Amino acid sequence: MSILIKNVQLNQHPVDIFIDGSCIARIGEGLSEKAGTVIDGNGKAVVPGFVNGHIHAAMTLFRGFGDDLPLEKWLNEKIWPYEKHLSEEDVYWGTKLACVEMIKTGTTCFNDMYMHYPPVLRAVEEMGLRATLGSTVFDFFDDDFAEKARQQIEKDSILPHDGRISFSLAPHAIYTVSGATLQWANDLAKANGWLVHLHLAETQTEYNNSVKNFGLSPVRYLHRLKLLSPRLILAHCLYADEEEIGMLADNGVRVVHNPNSNLKLGSGYAFRYEEMKAAGVMVGIGTDGAATSNSLNMIEAAKIAALLQKGWRNDPTVVPAEEALRCITENGAAILNINAGKIEAGYLADLCLIDLRSSAFAPGFNFVSNLIYATCGDCVDTVICDGKLLMENRCLKGEREIVEQASKAANRLMTNHG
Amino acid sequence: MSILIKNVQLNQHPVDIFIDGSCIARIGEGLSEKAGTVIDGNGKAVVPGFVNGHIHAAMTLFRGFGDDLPLEKWLNEKIWPYEKHLSEEDVYWGTKLACVEMIKTGTTCFNDMYMHYPPVLRAVEEMGLRATLGSTVFDFFDDDFAEKARQQIEKDSILPHDGRISFSLAPHAIYTVSGATLQWANDLAKANGWLVHLHLAETQTEYNNSVKNFGLSPVRYLHRLKLLSPRLILAHCLYADEEEIGMLADNGVRVVHNPNSNLKLGSGYAFRYEEMKAAGVMVGIGTDGAATSNSLNMIEAAKIAALLQKGWRNDPTVVPAEEALRCITENGAAILNINAGKIEAGYLADLCLIDLRSSAFAPGFNFVSNLIYATCGDCVDTVICDGKLLMENRCLKGEREIVEQASKAANRLMTNHG
Repeated sequence: MSILIKNVQLNQHPVDIFIDGSCIARIGEGLSEKAGTVIDGNGKAVVPGFVNGHIHAAMTLFRGFGDDLPLEKWLNEKIWPYEKHLSEEDVYWGTKLACVEMIKTGTTCFNDMYMHYPPVLRAVEEMGLRATLGSTVFDFFDDDFAEKARQQIEKDSILPHDGRISFSLAPHAIYTVSGATLQWANDLAKANGWLVHLHLAETQTEYNNSVKNFGLSPVRYLHRLKLLSPRLILAHCLYADEEEIGMLADNGVRVVHNPNSNLKLGSGYAFRYEEMKAAGVMVGIGTDGAATSNSLNMIEAAKIAALLQKGWRNDPTVVPAEEALRCITENGAAILNINAGKIEAGYLADLCLIDLRSSAFAPGFNFVSNLIYATCGDCVDTVICDGKLLMENRCLKGEREIVEQASKAANRLMTNHG
Repeated sequence: MSILIKNVQLNQHPVDIFIDGSCIARIGEGLSEKAGTVIDGNGKAVVPGFVNGHIHAAMTLFRGFGDDLPLEKWLNEKIWPYEKHLSEEDVYWGTKLACVEMIKTGTTCFNDMYMHYPPVLRAVEEMGLRATLGSTVFDFFDDDFAEKARQQIEKDSILPHDGRISFSLAPHAIYTVSGATLQWANDLAKANGWLVHLHLAETQTEYNNSVKNFGLSPVRYLHRLKLLSPRLILAHCLYADEEEIGMLADNGVRVVHNPNSNLKLGSGYAFRYEEMKAAGVMVGIGTDGAATSNSLNMIEAAKIAALLQKGWRNDPTVVPAEEALRCITENGAAILNINAGKIEAGYLADLCLIDLRSSAFAPGFNFVSNLIYATCGDCVDTVICDGKLLMENRCLKGEREIVEQASKAANRLMTNHG
């Protein structure tokens, strides 16, 4: 398997890129390597594939099913009554639908958290994306549930999977998982070299309840449980003060900001990106599931993250376009311990070709600014992941069938259990 | 000139739409009117064309030329040194480029503010969009400038133009135009039935300087000058308290919110949409010029406006998707005194067909939610304005040439005067 991309723009210069197996083997002018596939890069620019740092892929089935509602009502009336009836088939098609949307908007890797691990794994293996797939752990502070969760994890974690895919443990949150189960998950993850993916400090309510129930704020509670480590990925982390950010930095914890979801659910807006960066916390960006924030477009997520920082800080200079792009490429890859996120020889061949003929790229003063601030995702022309072509000229094999099957599954679910 | 659209989804039901001349003549099932053009609406939904309430179209030439900079540095180093060298040809191509982007993302009408009125007018007449074109007035508190501005307006306002296009007066701001000139503009607009398009209360600095220089906050200053009236459209209005919002409502003043621009320039985020709505102020949404907020995509602007309100208020129920859509359709048309913004017989035939096959529309639980929250603008398939087909199947005549000519003009400008 090899691909040669000819005359593509990289940092505003035309180059050839030779991909051998799953890696970028060589970048230069006039490369003459023989390749199984040759792609004409004229009129296109290459960027690393985007990394979606926090998503519940299969929940794309619930997109638009309950918007603009208070969180409790949304969960109690729109999500939980239906989610418990999800079949493996439903989860499979929901995950495939998410993969279609991710590929079409340039995402090559994502950090998932969901139940029903086997059909999620099967869908992602088929779609060709790179992913860390988190099997969700709940115990609701009940020993029987905890035991069931442990048995579930045992089954999920031994399923064989493609090298592109990593297994991770995804305890849901500190208000649904006991400290003992969180520590069990951390120990197991440590022993197996897995990551731990956890929602934390997403809302003021969660923060207040943590103080009430555990006598400590969410980050301090994790610190007391000795769970802060480089294997921990925290989604959201909207409510963390300077001292807590210091704890995250000192322990190498990674954070994923989800601006669209935080805004749409009214969770808050003052994500302390600058403070985390200054302290040395690695920060990525996610879309969260399409049930909450509706779109899985990482260019949009990066734009909104940048705009939001500028807005609430009254400072147009923070998070310039280049930095927003870094968050969804290099940082995302670093958070997941993946050797991707850069277009350099030796890195994984996870990349997109961007169509520069779109009016959003005119005038062409600043490619990265145009990509982050002016386009809307449909400029992604070609997507390569792990050295394999997933989309070319916006054509994605099987797209129509997946959209139809996922829609059918979603309608069936709501009709049968409404 | 007549168009018959067959089997298109309107409020989730298939209908036929017959367009006769510039208006929607009839909507129903199985219409058999003979039409010059017949469009197959299968797999598509119809929505009113979007109204961009505040833009400087020609400034698309400056897109990406100076991002992520403090306002003063941006103006002094990146905009003003070049803007003064703009030729009529440059403005023409810049406006055409903006029109391309607007049509491709479903905008059929916009409220412009710029200098060089004749080439703006020529470009918009050719592109077929509906517009209110504001000729900018500056006097810098100087009598000679004021006199020149008056002469300019006299020349611009008598240019003949298509019925789709309205002339308006666009005094720039209270810090660049004296009270006397503002009053002159208001009197002239009143006598001629024109609208007045003004930046107001965009930044805390503007607010503070207004208090310092005029002894009153921006809205109160306009109130004292007796300028608050239904012919006044205020862009931004981020800094207005309850009493000021009452003054706007009592006098029928219209407001255009520009969330992307306000965030990107760090101007602020707490636009008081709910308070204005409660008081009865008509609020629309704009993108501002692409030099500041980079994209002219109104779906994106509506999404960010809705998300931002939910976020800063910590309330997911405010500005539901339907209301965000209304802001960029009905409200936008109302602000500009145009009989559009609804798909009903008797309304102007300014509308878009949305391609429902995109993965963003799966599942199809809620079309409006999917349109506002999940798509990214490229779902706009066909655009009709004033009963004329501007784009069909995303094909826009002359697009490639306009993108090229505008890019050339922008590069020439920066190269010759850099």
